[in-house]
Amino acid sequence: MGALRLPSLALLLSPCKSLRLVSRPLLLRLRPSTLKPAASVSGGAGSRGLSSHSLAKEESSLPPPSADRKPSLSYEGSVTPRSVDFNAWYLDVIASAELADYGPVRGTMVIRPYGYAIWEAIQEYLNVKFKETGHSNMYFPQFIPYSFIEKEASHVEGFSPELALVTIGGGKELEEKLVVRPTSETIVNHMFTQWIHSYRDLPLMINQWANVTRWEMRTKPFVRTLEFLWQEGHTAHATLEEAEKEALQMIDVYKKFAYEQAAIPVIVGRKSRAETFAGAIRTYTIEAMMGDRKALQAGTSHNLGQNFSRAFGTQFTDENGQRQHVWQTSWAVSTRFVGGIIMTHGDDAGLMLPPRIAPIQVIVVPIWKTADEKNGVMNAVSSLKDVLHKADIRVKIDDTEQRTPGWKFNFWEMKGVPLRIEVGPRDVANESVVVSRRDIRGKPGKDFGISMEPSVLVTHIKSRLEEIQTSLLQRATSFRDSNVVDVNSYNELKEAIAQGKWARGPWSASDAEEVKVKEETGATIRCFPFEQPQGQKKCFMTGNPADEVAIFAKSY
Amino acid sequence: MGALRLPSLALLLSPCKSLRLVSRPLLLRLRPSTLKPAASVSGGAGSRGLSSHSLAKEESSLPPPSADRKPSLSYEGSVTPRSVDFNAWYLDVIASAELADYGPVRGTMVIRPYGYAIWEAIQEYLNVKFKETGHSNMYFPQFIPYSFIEKEASHVEGFSPELALVTIGGGKELEEKLVVRPTSETIVNHMFTQWIHSYRDLPLMINQWANVTRWEMRTKPFVRTLEFLWQEGHTAHATLEEAEKEALQMIDVYKKFAYEQAAIPVIVGRKSRAETFAGAIRTYTIEAMMGDRKALQAGTSHNLGQNFSRAFGTQFTDENGQRQHVWQTSWAVSTRFVGGIIMTHGDDAGLMLPPRIAPIQVIVVPIWKTADEKNGVMNAVSSLKDVLHKADIRVKIDDTEQRTPGWKFNFWEMKGVPLRIEVGPRDVANESVVVSRRDIRGKPGKDFGISMEPSVLVTHIKSRLEEIQTSLLQRATSFRDSNVVDVNSYNELKEAIAQGKWARGPWSASDAEEVKVKEETGATIRCFPFEQPQGQKKCFMTGNPADEVAIFAKSY
Repeated sequence: MGALRLPSLALLLSPCKSLRLVSRPLLLRLRPSTLKPAASVSGGAGSRGLSSHSLAKEESSLPPPSADRKPSLSYEGSVTPRSVDFNAWYLDVIASAELADYGPVRGTMVIRPYGYAIWEAIQEYLNVKFKETGHSNMYFPQFIPYSFIEKEASHVEGFSPELALVTIGGGKELEEKLVVRPTSETIVNHMFTQWIHSYRDLPLMINQWANVTRWEMRTKPFVRTLEFLWQEGHTAHATLEEAEKEALQMIDVYKKFAYEQAAIPVIVGRKSRAETFAGAIRTYTIEAMMGDRKALQAGTSHNLGQNFSRAFGTQFTDENGQRQHVWQTSWAVSTRFVGGIIMTHGDDAGLMLPPRIAPIQVIVVPIWKTADEKNGVMNAVSSLKDVLHKADIRVKIDDTEQRTPGWKFNFWEMKGVPLRIEVGPRDVANESVVVSRRDIRGKPGKDFGISMEPSVLVTHIKSRLEEIQTSLLQRATSFRDSNVVDVNSYNELKEAIAQGKWARGPWSASDAEEVKVKEETGATIRCFPFEQPQGQKKCFMTGNPADEVAIFAKSY
Repeated sequence: MGALRLPSLALLLSPCKSLRLVSRPLLLRLRPSTLKPAASVSGGAGSRGLSSHSLAKEESSLPPPSADRKPSLSYEGSVTPRSVDFNAWYLDVIASAELADYGPVRGTMVIRPYGYAIWEAIQEYLNVKFKETGHSNMYFPQFIPYSFIEKEASHVEGFSPELALVTIGGGKELEEKLVVRPTSETIVNHMFTQWIHSYRDLPLMINQWANVTRWEMRTKPFVRTLEFLWQEGHTAHATLEEAEKEALQMIDVYKKFAYEQAAIPVIVGRKSRAETFAGAIRTYTIEAMMGDRKALQAGTSHNLGQNFSRAFGTQFTDENGQRQHVWQTSWAVSTRFVGGIIMTHGDDAGLMLPPRIAPIQVIVVPIWKTADEKNGVMNAVSSLKDVLHKADIRVKIDDTEQRTPGWKFNFWEMKGVPLRIEVGPRDVANESVVVSRRDIRGKPGKDFGISMEPSVLVTHIKSRLEEIQTSLLQRATSFRDSNVVDVNSYNELKEAIAQGKWARGPWSASDAEEVKVKEETGATIRCFPFEQPQGQKKCFMTGNPADEVAIFAKSY
């Protein structure tokens, strides 16, 4: 098997990177059809000249590559090692683990079942938390009259360059262009204005799961795509204090999800003025350090103040009969989080998924040679699966006969499955199995002779899954902590950033100076973290007193 | 309280109907802001001249009306009786029960929490069934290059009049227009062509939950809106037989949902050639009879044959090394089903929800006069709620002090909650409650003196909920059966249709004669039902032999 047939998204979703790739031997690992340009719709080349369709025909004599439900045929034994090229590794993992594929329109992404299952795990957790904190799900139309977007000044400034516009409907030119929602504050306020009348109607707390569209120029699967999936919460309150409390509550829900489910030790804090959401008075964020030490903004919660309620006249009559504008929040987490999970935990061998959000927690690989052995092994494997399934452990058997056990070990490691159980004829005779951890490779990660007795096995597997969950969070936390540097001068910051690290230092300088840092170092203020060091501080840029430290980093 | 403040969707989503409404006393029940035209984007008048915003300001001295989470303020004690005007009743129920509201763009709909919760119940059931039958969820981009739609001839003919087109992205005119998906067969096939190579890749069985857009001219909330939510399943198989089996399996999943969860006795059958999905070789359907005896197509499952695989070159190498086109299916259920539930079970008093899909199964109304009584009653009510909640019964307490118990009884009946529990001081003393059924009004539907002892109460409530579920299905089945007429001549059909009934009769006439029936009677072939009468049959139109009976009806 040559390495030629491994598809890569590198050339398709990130053209700049693809140019770099061309000069590297990695290119040999791409098959011809992956060299086609993404179907460019806004740009130059059309998609039909060199479509995968025509290429698929030319290639029909090649051995059959990738399939959706038979992954054994798509993986050629390795991905670019993370330590060699982080970006190529990321795109290889997404392709080889079948998390996503490129859509026909430039910058769009097809989320494949294995990737979508991670998103479903995110949805299931957050959906429960949103309801527990008093929010109801509902659905707003995605088409927004263009005039709505123009009503809030900073909002239109922030979003107008990224809009997709519907201008034709039912064969006719529309009188007013429709915006395909980039976010829903405007249409939400249009409706809130009709529903909110008295203080008794407040707080109004809703959420929607939806797709959104932003015409991004530089895209990267999961991290930044033209269309993505997210949830957006929207609330209205009688006072600024209540809105602030809500915005803080929701960033805390996100933080807990990141730590407890995704095993990502995010840093929670407030955005600088320059990085605040277009239309908000304050934005809270969770910032995650990826494996290449770049920052990923993984979730945000905005205190919108009265900006939208003033623009849309969203008022209520208070207890004294006075008309007042409501105070609002909005908050969102998107499919970008899946990218954050990949880039936090993965290693040279591929994906590594935290057990709580892994679509498959345990992969079972049966091993046999003779038909007789096969019978015994498959019986054992099948009852083993039932036992784990009944204990609510997500388990899958890989019993395809086209691949060797060794190949399967590598494949499911690449797919990031936390635990592997091997069952051979000798294991059946001994009524025991071998259990291997994804996060500790080789012998130190193996438990030999684990009894197949249901209660023993279930207890063992559950405790190992918990250990892995804890271990991934610890590992990511150590990595993060060893890569955040305290700085007390601009030079120290420059040095830290040049080393690829995050810089934390006292900051009270101007917006202009923030821009200067960005221009000179590529780093932005990721946040003013909630956790602040004690004591008096001096801004490392100006020497003036500073109330807070800020964290600077390069980011996605 | 005047009836003036009850919003109605009649004028907003169904302009033709609104003209009829104007001549009726009902108009008096609409408040001024509901008289505004929907923001017309493709049509004439703009939305800004008479916006709800400006009206809201003019109205600020009126008492505060409708709120989302405080429904007690939006309901004035009645909806148009169903027996008086079915369409006005439908729109009143949607407004009063806060199921949906009109969006700012003509024909769009905001699904409010109570309506969305019904959709969530549909999703939860179907999502499990889809996975049990071997399908994985995933997500395809909603923007489809215009050229894709043109590839399958009947598909483009069916959908091109209804397309919404994105022509501007990121501030630039696009080279190729993008279609906002009306359905995803084309983009699915584009991707399937890249993923399917060998017989080992088949069957490929996926589903997505998504929004879709069809530029409909005559809209009606839930039943037909410009944008709606649905699931669309897509599968590819190695043989026609497998595809046919899949299409039949999925229409059966829909049928079971309709009968067992929604208590709707749908008729399952095959569509006529004229009514077959644009691009399919065969369409199966579940047809439901609404309270006005019109038919509602509530779900469809298509055998697509090789139409899309030929158009997109979706081929596989079979076991003999031959290249073949795959055989495909697609199947969908949408938010239209919510409309079907409303129109199947509702009565003069409003909505009536089958317990299995009711967002609230039991409403608890505490009754007291003195503060002392209140203490006792609220304690009882609160522990009662805990008991039911722990037994997985969806229960809510209405303890607002702004409304009388009698008003609350009417309100929650209008909202269709299956059971009501009343708790007054005497009930607390007797440690018993009164339980009232929504489906049997007045004394016959009441159980007095039901013990508050947890196990007794839970058993009683659960068995009552099951009884209501069964009873709603029986009632709807009797209604349906008494309104389907067997016909043996065209005159008999005309008479049945004129009486508002469904006509069932042997049919083997031509497509042209099918069109003639539609033009002359307004009825279409809803389906050739799976359940067919025994014996020889003669076409009622031509007198020729006929293999099957068809069902004709007027429809939504």
